[in-house]
Amino acid sequence: MDTRVKTESAFDLGAWSARHLDGVERALERWVTAEAPAGVDHGAPAELVEAMRYAVLDGGKRLRPLLVMAAWEAVTSDRVGADATRPAVPHEAALRAACAVELIHAYSLVHDDMPCMDNDVLRRGKPTVHVKFGEASALLAGDALQALAFELLTPELEGMPAERQARLCRLLARAAGSAGMAGGQAIDLASVGVSLTESQLRDMHRLKTGALLQASVMMGAACGDASAEAQAALKTYGAAIGLAFQVVDDILDVTADSATLGKTAGKDADQDKPTYVSVLGLERSAAHAQELLGQALAALAQSGLRNTQALQGLANMVVNRSC
Amino acid sequence: MDTRVKTESAFDLGAWSARHLDGVERALERWVTAEAPAGVDHGAPAELVEAMRYAVLDGGKRLRPLLVMAAWEAVTSDRVGADATRPAVPHEAALRAACAVELIHAYSLVHDDMPCMDNDVLRRGKPTVHVKFGEASALLAGDALQALAFELLTPELEGMPAERQARLCRLLARAAGSAGMAGGQAIDLASVGVSLTESQLRDMHRLKTGALLQASVMMGAACGDASAEAQAALKTYGAAIGLAFQVVDDILDVTADSATLGKTAGKDADQDKPTYVSVLGLERSAAHAQELLGQALAALAQSGLRNTQALQGLANMVVNRSC
Repeated sequence: MDTRVKTESAFDLGAWSARHLDGVERALERWVTAEAPAGVDHGAPAELVEAMRYAVLDGGKRLRPLLVMAAWEAVTSDRVGADATRPAVPHEAALRAACAVELIHAYSLVHDDMPCMDNDVLRRGKPTVHVKFGEASALLAGDALQALAFELLTPELEGMPAERQARLCRLLARAAGSAGMAGGQAIDLASVGVSLTESQLRDMHRLKTGALLQASVMMGAACGDASAEAQAALKTYGAAIGLAFQVVDDILDVTADSATLGKTAGKDADQDKPTYVSVLGLERSAAHAQELLGQALAALAQSGLRNTQALQGLANMVVNRSC
Repeated sequence: MDTRVKTESAFDLGAWSARHLDGVERALERWVTAEAPAGVDHGAPAELVEAMRYAVLDGGKRLRPLLVMAAWEAVTSDRVGADATRPAVPHEAALRAACAVELIHAYSLVHDDMPCMDNDVLRRGKPTVHVKFGEASALLAGDALQALAFELLTPELEGMPAERQARLCRLLARAAGSAGMAGGQAIDLASVGVSLTESQLRDMHRLKTGALLQASVMMGAACGDASAEAQAALKTYGAAIGLAFQVVDDILDVTADSATLGKTAGKDADQDKPTYVSVLGLERSAAHAQELLGQALAALAQSGLRNTQALQGLANMVVNRSC
């Protein structure tokens, strides 16, 4: 048996991620800036941009950008295979979508860490934005990052058709807003000290974390030209890993320490917040995470898409991560 | 002389505003809601939406929506006049643009009033959002209102072409972000107790207030089909009234009382913030406002647009208002 062939065909998630992350990091570095774009009189004030860059650069696992890239690759290679006369989708759209989702995620962490919310001083092993720059700057940096996400999605570029720009904005706005991430955080706030059923907990997490993770997958798909069948499968995949992410987060909050997490561990229990562990217990939570992983992988298998190795690998990583 | 004819041809800004405001208020009432749109599983949590509605509904002069409508009418009637075979632009786009700009304005007030920013307890004669709902809810309501603005601009509607959606998002995102409103607020924060030159003060106000007012005008124009000449003129008009608004705001902060303003008067002086009055004095500030009004009206006169009565009236109102 020729093991070399087997090795070459095996998918290396680490290498795949590193390749894409390199592009994402450089793009974020370039786009979160005080420089005025061509044709515009003025840039942003340096002090605000410094806080924005601190919030975004040099940290984070970049799960959301990787989901965008993986979904984009899956639908693109599929269509290219189906019809080689179609032009390849410009990478620009996927890169912008990946960065836009990450900016929304980054802004939500900045605001979530503020004293009036979770009051956290440590994030990715560093002082949180409001600790370093003050509360007012943290508030404004978060606000500006949200606006920047939509600015990134709507460039005056010929290679990025308006239909795609509008669809990306639509997916991101809905996932970020009151029926998505912000709504989930509001339910989270209102749930301190409250006993929730598993179904209520699921609804909360679907909005708080799931909506943006699912949107990452759908935005990646929107950068290609996915069939309705593929889109439906990716939506199911996104919902499953979106929820699995939070179940595992709840588990890690109990089982990992702060140094490993890069943020304060045991926070949820301390703040008397309902979690999967408090509702289901550790063992059943872990089993539930594996069940959601199975749902995500089954959706991919039924999607009709062929190049789903990165999406499979990311689903595995979400569920089996240790931090 | 037949005075009736003269009366009919005179432009009644009050009646014009009332007609448009009726539509804007009803649209805001409908769109800031917990209801899930068709085809979506879930809406937003009621407690968050209550804070968002409080921030948006039943208050505010709605200057920005009126600027959108006035600019849209100016470019639309012009093009219709130029080529009657063109279909009238759907009102839907202008209405959505008007509401989106107002949501951004409303969110900025919610965040601006928070204790870590201006720490204000009174707005439009009512308790501010954080006083009524708590700081965390105010933070999240503001965040969700920003996302909703971009959601409003990107509906799945045949009558609103993707090109228009993308352009509206682009204009709004840039005006709201770090090189616009949020950037201006950051400069404002950093300027407490600092002595600014008139030029530095102008730059700050151009971002803080001017960018969104100018974007309102440009977004209205983007809902029609303005010529490059008309767009350039409207940009100049928007810049002039954007700055004039803030000059007059600085004057009123000194000359009006809290009851008239519906917010705390004398705040800027109390907080040792540089203003036009502190830099130029009252008399020169008032003269500067009139000069900016002249620039705005001159730009309209040179625009090649014929139906600019509402834009003229709004410019007059901005400069000659008493609250």
